[in-house]
Amino acid sequence: MQEEAQRVRRRDLLALIGTMAGSAAMYHAMTSLGLASESPYPGPIRLQGDPKGASVLVLGAGLAGMTAALELRKAGYKVQILEFNGRAGGRNWTLRGGDRFTELGGFTQACEFERGLYLNPGPWRIPYHHRALLDYCKRLGVALEPFIQLNHNALLHAARAFDGVPQRIRAVRADFQGQIAELLAKATQQRRLDDAVTTEDQEILLQALKSWGALDQNYHYGANLTSAAYRGYATDPGGGLAAPAAPSEPVGLSDILKSRLWRYLQNFATYNFQTTMFQPVGGMDMIGKAFASQVGDVIRYNSKVTAITQDDRGVTVTYVDTADPKDTRKDTQKATQTAVADWCVCTIPLSILSQLPIDVSADLKSAIDAVPYAAAVKIGLQFKRRFWEEDDAIYGGISYTDLPIRQIAYPNTGFNHSGRAVLLGAYLFDGANAFEFTAMPPAERVARAVEFGAAIHPQYPAEFENGIAVAWHRMPFTLGCSGDWSEEARGQHYRNLCRIDGRIVLAGEHASALPAWQEGAILSALDAITRLHERVVKT
Amino acid sequence: MQEEAQRVRRRDLLALIGTMAGSAAMYHAMTSLGLASESPYPGPIRLQGDPKGASVLVLGAGLAGMTAALELRKAGYKVQILEFNGRAGGRNWTLRGGDRFTELGGFTQACEFERGLYLNPGPWRIPYHHRALLDYCKRLGVALEPFIQLNHNALLHAARAFDGVPQRIRAVRADFQGQIAELLAKATQQRRLDDAVTTEDQEILLQALKSWGALDQNYHYGANLTSAAYRGYATDPGGGLAAPAAPSEPVGLSDILKSRLWRYLQNFATYNFQTTMFQPVGGMDMIGKAFASQVGDVIRYNSKVTAITQDDRGVTVTYVDTADPKDTRKDTQKATQTAVADWCVCTIPLSILSQLPIDVSADLKSAIDAVPYAAAVKIGLQFKRRFWEEDDAIYGGISYTDLPIRQIAYPNTGFNHSGRAVLLGAYLFDGANAFEFTAMPPAERVARAVEFGAAIHPQYPAEFENGIAVAWHRMPFTLGCSGDWSEEARGQHYRNLCRIDGRIVLAGEHASALPAWQEGAILSALDAITRLHERVVKT
Repeated sequence: MQEEAQRVRRRDLLALIGTMAGSAAMYHAMTSLGLASESPYPGPIRLQGDPKGASVLVLGAGLAGMTAALELRKAGYKVQILEFNGRAGGRNWTLRGGDRFTELGGFTQACEFERGLYLNPGPWRIPYHHRALLDYCKRLGVALEPFIQLNHNALLHAARAFDGVPQRIRAVRADFQGQIAELLAKATQQRRLDDAVTTEDQEILLQALKSWGALDQNYHYGANLTSAAYRGYATDPGGGLAAPAAPSEPVGLSDILKSRLWRYLQNFATYNFQTTMFQPVGGMDMIGKAFASQVGDVIRYNSKVTAITQDDRGVTVTYVDTADPKDTRKDTQKATQTAVADWCVCTIPLSILSQLPIDVSADLKSAIDAVPYAAAVKIGLQFKRRFWEEDDAIYGGISYTDLPIRQIAYPNTGFNHSGRAVLLGAYLFDGANAFEFTAMPPAERVARAVEFGAAIHPQYPAEFENGIAVAWHRMPFTLGCSGDWSEEARGQHYRNLCRIDGRIVLAGEHASALPAWQEGAILSALDAITRLHERVVKT
Repeated sequence: MQEEAQRVRRRDLLALIGTMAGSAAMYHAMTSLGLASESPYPGPIRLQGDPKGASVLVLGAGLAGMTAALELRKAGYKVQILEFNGRAGGRNWTLRGGDRFTELGGFTQACEFERGLYLNPGPWRIPYHHRALLDYCKRLGVALEPFIQLNHNALLHAARAFDGVPQRIRAVRADFQGQIAELLAKATQQRRLDDAVTTEDQEILLQALKSWGALDQNYHYGANLTSAAYRGYATDPGGGLAAPAAPSEPVGLSDILKSRLWRYLQNFATYNFQTTMFQPVGGMDMIGKAFASQVGDVIRYNSKVTAITQDDRGVTVTYVDTADPKDTRKDTQKATQTAVADWCVCTIPLSILSQLPIDVSADLKSAIDAVPYAAAVKIGLQFKRRFWEEDDAIYGGISYTDLPIRQIAYPNTGFNHSGRAVLLGAYLFDGANAFEFTAMPPAERVARAVEFGAAIHPQYPAEFENGIAVAWHRMPFTLGCSGDWSEEARGQHYRNLCRIDGRIVLAGEHASALPAWQEGAILSALDAITRLHERVVKT
């Protein structure tokens, strides 16, 4: 009764605050009551104070660079961006039919996807707690749709388990959890938890394990309609006289343990991959394009930075134009051009920046050199039809395998449509597999993805049409997927990397605690320009 | 190596089948290899044989009735449908601004939702394994989008636990699972599972529990960055110099057990509610409208059936027209009209049918009378803004509470938009609460939903604009939500309910093993007309 009174008082209090003071005050009160979490994004940035005509040169028109440019210009700065590629977005990138790109080593791929189909070779999902990115999507009018991370009906596959037959996630999950619950219920009933759990709690624990493990009334997990309600049926319930359902046979705990398929069960529950995730409608590059619609007028494309110098009065960046079709010389033979500004926000990936002459302190230079870049390969495959939906009832989500392709991720849009579709046929990151695939010519990467995928989806060979393979270590503008910080390097170099060095400050996912995430790039840029602006306004 | 060889042989075999025989043969082979599940929907129905001009009268233009009409007409029958309401769809229904309806007892509600917003008062989600419904959506061109059932960031609330403060699903889930894993790991290490698990498996079990429970290297679940990667952080990782993340403090197992919040954790994993679920874009009634676009020309609306008779030659149904605006008499005083046909597919809910004179065997009549109808109340609330997204980062999904409202379900469309939105502010089914709310005038139902909801979302009072409340026991066309079969009644009456009785056969969710699901209605209709057609073609 005391709790009831407390609850009512709390509710009345909050209602009163809401009525009297509006939602902002209410939200403040609610936060202090423990409901809201602590995001590092407190809402739209406010750069107060007059920069008095100061100029900023931004290097890189990825999300970090464009965030910096957008907000600095709004705060009164003169802003210019130099961008290596002929497009904005950087790793925020979407490949569609007709797109072409050339990787280091000279291989050029032409995307042959049917109109309307695409692959996001870089970032492809947005967690609900990436508040900055979601806020920019809202402000810039980027429409979002759910990205399905966990699909209970997708597959877990281990080449050496279950005769190579993939298992449904729902079945492995229910069977593992059910048999764990049964083991613990048994231990509880045998009084083996007496030293850890009170007798009162043991009573409730047994109820909880029964509910949570889909156990029968004897606390046993078996082949019955209770377990079928989680793992699925041998025959689904139907209509009319065809109605009766038949339970399915669980997989034994020992088989699950030995298969190692349990390794995948927690993927879906990590904070980074929890529901609700999003993707932009039409491709991830809708975000890059939305930013470019705001700052595109200050971007100078096809500008390859060759050196960065600074002195007391400003920053000078030299670059070459790589786009002139009449200029057939190598980049190193071309005449350099020069851009100058009072300040510089440099978002060039460290993999590239570490190879450039740059006029910074030894500490920052050491930090720039301290971060290797992760390898990653993504392969998009176009098929004649959505056989994963039509034959296997897999709508979106991800199947996991211990084959080199690692994942098969099904499209999260156009559900239940007829006709062609593109899935992500391989997502290799780190490790020998990623390097091995990076070393192959693109056509071979695609062929291998089809071959391996056929072990999971036998429809592959008959339905495959074309594919494209992005090996990030060979992409000239990043030479890798993302900054691969070791704990040790982070301890030694991270703060040095982020500190303003004279008139230069670095930003990008590599300068964040969220490596490889777009949110890291944006938060890094917001933090960098906040500190830069403070310095400018003070001086 | 032997498994490897087996796997390769299996893959080669399947690839060969695929190449040689195409995808149908491949799918057959795959099914026999154990990949596909056994759906009671084998694909589009094929009614072969000439019905020789036979006529069928269908009672009810819900999904069962319209499925029967569509397929029977395609097979060559003369079909007519009598429908009680002035619209097709039955419980497949969506309320939008401008809609009005009157419930038993005389209360009329006018929906005041802003244009584009809606409530699905009946069915609102479609599981991926409802193959028949999904196939009709595909054939009839109904666009689908994901329905988010599990949102890790939504709330679990118990009035008497945690001082009434709602808990994030992610935190309760991670903390329960982590502490279960810790208990079992401890028992394993103390050799207390030796009688149940082999020593070899115990080794792997410990690894699995560590991964699956987010345990630290000592198999302990605690406040650290490992648990934070599942339950969430006190401070999220950020960018630049604001980067460091702070772990959060788990809730103790005893508190979770006593709170009973564990009761909700398995909801999301049931076969019926697993990912990927769907909803039609724009409202559930897009399905009813799509069916009506096929069979609308044979529907006679506003036709209230008053009696059903049959003899050796056919079926005669009397009904009254309830729509004539000039006719102000009570329905019972109106002149009855008559419809005749060779056969009748009756989809009238048993709650209504049991009150009508109907010319059937005593067994069928007993079956019709044996099924009470479940009470259910759904309340839609319009708010000025999506405060659950903007303030609380809750995008779609469902929060659960032990307050009478039971659930708050957030809209699964228009994510991240500014402006007004409608959420499901209460979903009461069965039990005293549903009856209590059914007994209230609609305005009071809405007011109570706002009052209770404010205990979970303090923003409610300041942001609420208008609401609508559908109490299914008071809806004249169903007098309840769905057939509420007891195990005993099903054992005694179900087959009698589904058998063809002379020239009449029943269909609808009540004549299926999937009560309250649209799939049950459709599968029931397909089974009924398959048997009816067999009889017609034989005679």
